[in-house]
Amino acid sequence: MRFVEKLLSASRKNHSLVCVGLDTDVGKIPQYLIKEEDPIFAFNQKIIDSTSDLVCAYKPNIAFYEAHGPKGWDALKKTCEYIPKEIPIILDAKRGDIGNTARMYAKAYFEGLKVDAVTVSPYMGKDALLPFLEYEDKCALVLCLTSNEGAKDFQLSITDGKPLYEIVAEKVLSWNEKKNCGLVVGATYPDQLKRIREIAPLLPFLIPGIGAQAGEIESTVRFGTDKSGELAIINVSRAILYASSGEDFAQVAKNETLRLRETINLYRQK
Amino acid sequence: MRFVEKLLSASRKNHSLVCVGLDTDVGKIPQYLIKEEDPIFAFNQKIIDSTSDLVCAYKPNIAFYEAHGPKGWDALKKTCEYIPKEIPIILDAKRGDIGNTARMYAKAYFEGLKVDAVTVSPYMGKDALLPFLEYEDKCALVLCLTSNEGAKDFQLSITDGKPLYEIVAEKVLSWNEKKNCGLVVGATYPDQLKRIREIAPLLPFLIPGIGAQAGEIESTVRFGTDKSGELAIINVSRAILYASSGEDFAQVAKNETLRLRETINLYRQK
Repeated sequence: MRFVEKLLSASRKNHSLVCVGLDTDVGKIPQYLIKEEDPIFAFNQKIIDSTSDLVCAYKPNIAFYEAHGPKGWDALKKTCEYIPKEIPIILDAKRGDIGNTARMYAKAYFEGLKVDAVTVSPYMGKDALLPFLEYEDKCALVLCLTSNEGAKDFQLSITDGKPLYEIVAEKVLSWNEKKNCGLVVGATYPDQLKRIREIAPLLPFLIPGIGAQAGEIESTVRFGTDKSGELAIINVSRAILYASSGEDFAQVAKNETLRLRETINLYRQK
Repeated sequence: MRFVEKLLSASRKNHSLVCVGLDTDVGKIPQYLIKEEDPIFAFNQKIIDSTSDLVCAYKPNIAFYEAHGPKGWDALKKTCEYIPKEIPIILDAKRGDIGNTARMYAKAYFEGLKVDAVTVSPYMGKDALLPFLEYEDKCALVLCLTSNEGAKDFQLSITDGKPLYEIVAEKVLSWNEKKNCGLVVGATYPDQLKRIREIAPLLPFLIPGIGAQAGEIESTVRFGTDKSGELAIINVSRAILYASSGEDFAQVAKNETLRLRETINLYRQK
């Protein structure tokens, strides 16, 4: 099954555009979990159990696992295996390297961890993305306009008469022969989000920047979804994971996810 | 000790600008090593033993280790610990993510693996690099103009009246307050390498693209070094590691490294 089909299937079944970012930080999880053999996995299990009927995808950011070396890799692998098969997993890795090396990353993530999609950086161009695009049933989500302050350093600069992020969106569209590309577009730049959706009406968009980064939900839904109100993967990490630091964290995370799903769905209907 | 000082010290002691890229691929190493408990580490040990008096740095590419999950991480950590303390280690990771996440990467590499430098991608801008730049004695080597074909997709496009890679070089120079920045510039674009050295006369340059990627040694040395014929880290990976697939691989790798060092040094004197 292609990534987009898997995404739409999960999104429709759960009536949700919410993606929970599994950026699990041992310094922030409830302290009673620290005594567990694998505190990161224990935390993720409870978050997944309490939200898997409310999301369209999960997005672990690999940095939070790499930070713990081999143990972190184990926690990531176990987490990927634990996520219900019908929910797509997006590995947030922002990789980009020459073909020889990119092939290693693609193999590690798509075959080793068996994730459904990976975020990749466009800076090194098409040949750095090709090894990811060879997997027809997977997806490469290319950084287009990111949600952070530093996005303006290069992404907003005018390149060949257009902002660089528009050039990236256009190029990615031209590389989408196998229908397995998508874009990462931050919620913090609503006007640009609208413009990028005009350029790429059919691509899935991973949209970070809601929650801790303060992007607006209404404009994100209006401008980020396709014309059916779908294909937007709206990610929230910290504001869900750490909504409570007590033993009730999973229940509070569930409530936050539900609240976010409902708010998003309200705007989808308008 | 600052990265540049450590680099110059190793480079002068070994009379070398050669960096050996430890892109160790189990599919390419001599087959008699496969029976070892950790074939990747066993291979790296022999390469390091036979070249450590001939190089200015080692550069493991993390993708080749990640591809093997927790075992790969172990091999990378053991390799980093095995490299003689006076030789700088550059971790080729090409990372770039929001501050919160970049901090995780910086900690994992600089504190966990204890490497001296990391390659990073500029696409997400300054705030994605700041967590790396907070380590005064380490170095962030920012992708400027890469050696691959795809470099032309974005890096060569004209941005605000200049090629994007020039904007990147200028920005990185302005972020170099703690003297811990450098640039990655491919050997495959000699004219551009010359221009970037003019923009950043004092930054260390990591220069891939010699060897398997067919960049020219003479122009690389002439245009890539500073005015003292230093501060160029000329990386070769495959052409050294896999020069022989037999039991003599370490000796052949040594001969290749020596030959490359001498060729480079010949041009340095001109």
